[in-house]
Amino acid sequence: MALRGLLRVGEVCIRVMDMKKARRHYDEIMGLHEVMEGPDGKVYYKCWDEHDHHSIILNPSDRPGMDYFAFKVSSDSVLTDLEPKIEKFGLKVKHIAAGVYPKSGRRLEFVLPTGHTMHLYAEKEQIGNTMPTLNPGVTPDDGVVRGCHINRVDHLLLGGQHIQESARLFMEVFDFDLSERFVEKESQMPLAMFLTCSTKPHDIAFVLQPEQNKYHHTSFWLESSHDVTKAADRLGKYRVPIDVGPNRHGITRGATIYFFDPSGNRCEVFAEGYVHYPDTPTLTWDTTDAGHATFSQDNIVRESFLQVLT
Amino acid sequence: MALRGLLRVGEVCIRVMDMKKARRHYDEIMGLHEVMEGPDGKVYYKCWDEHDHHSIILNPSDRPGMDYFAFKVSSDSVLTDLEPKIEKFGLKVKHIAAGVYPKSGRRLEFVLPTGHTMHLYAEKEQIGNTMPTLNPGVTPDDGVVRGCHINRVDHLLLGGQHIQESARLFMEVFDFDLSERFVEKESQMPLAMFLTCSTKPHDIAFVLQPEQNKYHHTSFWLESSHDVTKAADRLGKYRVPIDVGPNRHGITRGATIYFFDPSGNRCEVFAEGYVHYPDTPTLTWDTTDAGHATFSQDNIVRESFLQVLT
Amino acid sequence: MALRGLLRVGEVCIRVMDMKKARRHYDEIMGLHEVMEGPDGKVYYKCWDEHDHHSIILNPSDRPGMDYFAFKVSSDSVLTDLEPKIEKFGLKVKHIAAGVYPKSGRRLEFVLPTGHTMHLYAEKEQIGNTMPTLNPGVTPDDGVVRGCHINRVDHLLLGGQHIQESARLFMEVFDFDLSERFVEKESQMPLAMFLTCSTKPHDIAFVLQPEQNKYHHTSFWLESSHDVTKAADRLGKYRVPIDVGPNRHGITRGATIYFFDPSGNRCEVFAEGYVHYPDTPTLTWDTTDAGHATFSQDNIVRESFLQVLT
Amino acid sequence: MALRGLLRVGEVCIRVMDMKKARRHYDEIMGLHEVMEGPDGKVYYKCWDEHDHHSIILNPSDRPGMDYFAFKVSSDSVLTDLEPKIEKFGLKVKHIAAGVYPKSGRRLEFVLPTGHTMHLYAEKEQIGNTMPTLNPGVTPDDGVVRGCHINRVDHLLLGGQHIQESARLFMEVFDFDLSERFVEKESQMPLAMFLTCSTKPHDIAFVLQPEQNKYHHTSFWLESSHDVTKAADRLGKYRVPIDVGPNRHGITRGATIYFFDPSGNRCEVFAEGYVHYPDTPTLTWDTTDAGHATFSQDNIVRESFLQVLT
Repeated sequence: MALRGLLRVGEVCIRVMDMKKARRHYDEIMGLHEVMEGPDGKVYYKCWDEHDHHSIILNPSDRPGMDYFAFKVSSDSVLTDLEPKIEKFGLKVKHIAAGVYPKSGRRLEFVLPTGHTMHLYAEKEQIGNTMPTLNPGVTPDDGVVRGCHINRVDHLLLGGQHIQESARLFMEVFDFDLSERFVEKESQMPLAMFLTCSTKPHDIAFVLQPEQNKYHHTSFWLESSHDVTKAADRLGKYRVPIDVGPNRHGITRGATIYFFDPSGNRCEVFAEGYVHYPDTPTLTWDTTDAGHATFSQDNIVRESFLQVLT
Repeated sequence: MALRGLLRVGEVCIRVMDMKKARRHYDEIMGLHEVMEGPDGKVYYKCWDEHDHHSIILNPSDRPGMDYFAFKVSSDSVLTDLEPKIEKFGLKVKHIAAGVYPKSGRRLEFVLPTGHTMHLYAEKEQIGNTMPTLNPGVTPDDGVVRGCHINRVDHLLLGGQHIQESARLFMEVFDFDLSERFVEKESQMPLAMFLTCSTKPHDIAFVLQPEQNKYHHTSFWLESSHDVTKAADRLGKYRVPIDVGPNRHGITRGATIYFFDPSGNRCEVFAEGYVHYPDTPTLTWDTTDAGHATFSQDNIVRESFLQVLT
Repeated sequence: MALRGLLRVGEVCIRVMDMKKARRHYDEIMGLHEVMEGPDGKVYYKCWDEHDHHSIILNPSDRPGMDYFAFKVSSDSVLTDLEPKIEKFGLKVKHIAAGVYPKSGRRLEFVLPTGHTMHLYAEKEQIGNTMPTLNPGVTPDDGVVRGCHINRVDHLLLGGQHIQESARLFMEVFDFDLSERFVEKESQMPLAMFLTCSTKPHDIAFVLQPEQNKYHHTSFWLESSHDVTKAADRLGKYRVPIDVGPNRHGITRGATIYFFDPSGNRCEVFAEGYVHYPDTPTLTWDTTDAGHATFSQDNIVRESFLQVLT
Repeated sequence: MALRGLLRVGEVCIRVMDMKKARRHYDEIMGLHEVMEGPDGKVYYKCWDEHDHHSIILNPSDRPGMDYFAFKVSSDSVLTDLEPKIEKFGLKVKHIAAGVYPKSGRRLEFVLPTGHTMHLYAEKEQIGNTMPTLNPGVTPDDGVVRGCHINRVDHLLLGGQHIQESARLFMEVFDFDLSERFVEKESQMPLAMFLTCSTKPHDIAFVLQPEQNKYHHTSFWLESSHDVTKAADRLGKYRVPIDVGPNRHGITRGATIYFFDPSGNRCEVFAEGYVHYPDTPTLTWDTTDAGHATFSQDNIVRESFLQVLT
C-alpha cells in the first residue's frame, strides 16, 4: 500500500534573528527558492523538487529555534481519524481553520511530550517543481537547481526530555516504525530514537535533552554523496560555520554535513542511507560505539551533537 | 504511517537454461549471494543488504522468462484482508501452505490480467545483511559488497495485454499510486504504467505487449549513479550483452543499465530517481517524446525496449 | 622536470555554419565562456579553468571541420629550437608575426603529414580563471562553472592518411610518448595512435582515414565521471545529437560522451583515465577487441567512430 | 615534450614499529599489494596501477618516520647529467651500485637542505599492473583493486628548516615548477612550498619545521572524490586514527583524508585537484586564510597539520 496517513515533514518554521543574513544563507548559499513574504515578515521557501508551495518558513525573532513543525497527511479524513487518537494519547488538539496558515487547509495543532508544537494538515497549494506533468524531462532549466542542489526537506531532529513518549506517539498513534535507537550502555536508556513512515531510514528523530522544545536540525536531501562533497565546497567557500564536515552517520548510513545558519540554527545536507522497510530489524547503537554511531568516518564524538541545540 | 500492506517485490523466480552460466552471471558478475540450492535444482540468491533469506530464484528450464513473482506484505492479516478483495476484483485466489515455498509462510497465488502469476506472503526467514543489529556499523566486511555492488531488488517491469487492468488491481485493491504513465499520443492509450507503494518512483510497472505473461526485467538497486558507472565497467569487462548502456530514464529519473543474462532475460541496475509521495502529480509521457521518456541522455528510442521480452 | 616544449592543445579553430546555433551549443549548452568576437566574425571561447585568453575559436563557414589547431609551447626559445627540426623532418615552416592571431605571440605554422594545419606559439594573453592568485579559494563564483562543467580543453583526435608520419613527428621532433595504439590484427597496421606530452593518457591522437585533413573531435575535460553523467543529462535535455552516450573508452580508460555541434562537428566530454608516465608500457589494442578498445562498457563497435569526421 | 628528467616519487621507505600491525594497515585496510619481504625484514608494496616492482617499503624500526625517498628519472643519462649539477648546488652525491636496492638500477644519493635523504634512479624491474599490454581492458580482475582503491603513490610532504633551499634545488636543478606556496602574512616567509614536475598540482612539497628531516605524509592517488568518500567509510570501519576526515585542500584543490598508520606516520588519500601547466600562475595563500588554504570545506586550522610529523 502506498504511503498513507502522515507522509513527510511538510513545514518547519524556524526563528531567525537577522532576515537579511538568513535570506543570504537559505536562498543564495543553500539555494532554496523564496516563494513569498508574509505581512508579518515571515519568509517562505521551497526546495526545487517539492511540489507544495513552501516547506521552510523563516520567522523574524530575537532568538533562534523552531516555532513549530508540520507533517502533511494523505487526506483530510486522516485528520478526522487521528484527532481522537491524539486526544486519547493525552494531548490536547487545537483546530486551526483553513487559510490561517497561508496556502494551507485546516490543521490540527498539539504539543508533543518533548514540548514541540506540531501541526497536521492535508492540503497545501501546489505550485510544482517547474517541470510540466506532460513530458516533464528529467532536468529543470538553468537556475532551478542551484546553491547546494537541495531537492527537498528530508527529516527533523528534535530535542527534549520525554523522547520515549514522543516516539510512542509516532509509533502508536501515527504508526511509524522505529528504525534505530541510540542507548546509554549501562542503563539502556534511549538517548536518541529514529522513526520512519517511509522507505527512508528516518523521517523524524528525537534526542534526549535536559530542556524541552529544543531544535537540533532540519535535514535537506541531496541526490548523492557527490552532491554532498560539492555542497561542502560551497559551504566552505562562503565560510558558513561548519559543525561537522562531510562524514557519514553510522545511524542511517547517511552522508552528512552539519552547519549553522547565521542565527545558530543547525542545518544538515543528507544523501544516501539504506532503504528501510517495516520488516527491517530495528538497529541499536550504544554509548560504547557513540563515535561510529554518529560520525562513522572518523569515530569522533562531537560534544556539540548532544549539546548545541536552539 | 509507515508502509503497510504490500511492501516490495520480495521474490522473482526466473527461468534459466544453463545453470552454470546463470550462476556465473548472477553470482560472480552481478555479485548476488547464493544462499541455497533446492532438491529441484532451483538456486536461491539474496542481495547483500536484504534481510530476508532470498529474493531471486533461478529455475532450470528450457526457455527463459519468469515463473512467478511475489510481494511481501506487512503482516499475515493483510493476506486475510486482501483475499476477498482480490476475489472481488475477479481473480481466483489459490492458497499455498507455509513451507511449500522454502523459508516462506503461507501464500496467496493468483494470475494478473496481464497473465503473470503473483504471490503474496507475509513471512520469510530472515538471515540478515551480515551486520549485527547492535552497533552494526555502516560497511560490511570485505567480500559482502562485490560484483556490481547491488544492494537489493528494486522493482519489476512486466509485459502483457491488459496493463490497465493489472494497474487497476494494484491501485484499487493494493492501494498503489500511479507515479507515471507512457501513452500513445493520438489515442492516449497507455503503453506503460508505473506504480509505487513506497517513496520510490516505482515498485512495479506494466508495458503493453501483444502476448500475455511476458517478462521485461528485474531491477536491482545500487547506492548511486557512480556505482552504475562502475557496474558498466564490470559488465563490459565480462562482455555481458548490453541492451542499453549507462543512461538515465526520463520516466523515474533513474540511472540505468539494461543487460541480459545468458538465457536472454533482461536485468537492470538502477540508482537515484526522485522521491515519490502520494501527492506528487502523476507524470504523463507520450509517444512524441518516447526517446526522452525511456532514455533521456540520448533520446534514442530502442526497439528492444518494447519488443524484447522473455 | 616540469613539462617543457609543447605543453597542450592551446587553440582549435572550428568551422561552423550557423553562428547563432553554434553559440547556443558551445556557450549556453556546453558552458564555455565567450571572450571576444573578431571583426571577421570569429567568436572566441575559453573554458573556465584555463588561464589563457581563449582556446576555442568558431569560424563562420559554409562547411564544418577544423581550420587549424595550435599547441602552446613553454617559451619562445622552444619555437627557435623546433623550427629547424621541423624543417629537417620535411615540413615547410611558415612564420606568423605576433598579433596576427589575436592576443597571441609569434607562431610557427606547418602542415602535418595527415594534412592538418598546425601552429606553435609561446605567448598568449592571460586573463585568468576568475579566481585571484592570492588566496584563490577552490570554487569560482556562481555562474562561472556552468553548462557541462567543462574545466579545459583536453585533447584532439584528427584523421588522415599518414598517421604514422604525423605520430613520428610528434614522437621524434616534439618528443611525445606513444601511450596506446589500435592496430589491424592481421597486418598490424596502425588504425589509430595516441600520443602524450603530459601525465594524461593522451594530448593528441590520429586515426587512419581515406581523406586527409579530417577532424574527429575536440575533447573537453571534466573533473569526474559524475560530471560526465550530469553532462549527459544536460545534453539529453537540450536534444543535442549524441554519437555515443556515456561510456568508457578502453583506450585511455576515459569516461566519455561523443556528441555533435549543430554543424556536425564532434565534441567530447572526458574525465578520469589513468596517469601516464614515460615508463608506462605502450598499450596495443587490435581489431579483435575493437568494441572494448573504443567503448568498453558495451563493447559495441560504432561505425561512426571511424567514418564520421568533418 | 613528454615528461623527462625526474618523473615521480618512485619509492618511499617508511619506518614502522610493529610489522604485523603495519601489514594490516597498508595491505588489508589500505589495499596495497605486498610484493616481497627482504632478508632484513623490509616489506615491499606496490599500488595496483603502478608498473614498477614496488613503491612503498616498510622498514622495521623502533621509531616512526621516513628513511629516504626516491624519484625515478626518465633515463640513466639523466643521472649522469644531474650529478654535477647537484654537486654544484652544494650537495654531496653518493653513488649506490645497481642491485644494492632490490630490483633497482644504480642510484644517486644526497641529503636535501631540509635534512631528508633522497635517491634518484632510472631503472626498476617492472612487473606490470596485472593487465596485459595487448588488449588490456580497463578493469583488473577481482581482488586487484581492493581496500581503499589506491591507484598509485601521488606525492610527498616533508618538513624541515630550509624549505626554500630544498625548493630551490627542485626548481633550479630538477626544473620543477612552484605551483603554490603558503606564506606568513606579515613577513611573507614561506611556511610551505608545493612543487610539480607534471600536470598534477604537486609532486613534492615542503613545510617549515623547527626540526630537520621530518616526514609529514605520503599521499596515495584515488580515481575520484567518490572513492575518497568510500575510503573514509573503510577507514572509519577499521577505526583507523583519522587526522582530518574527508575534506578538500584549498591548496591543490585535492579531495583528501589524513590518517595515521599504527606507528603514527601520516598517510593521505587524494583525488581530483586541477590540471597544472608551467604557465599556470603560482598561487599564494597567506596565514590570514590558513583554514581555507589547508581544509577548505570547514576552514578549520588543524594544529596537527603543522605540528604532527614523524
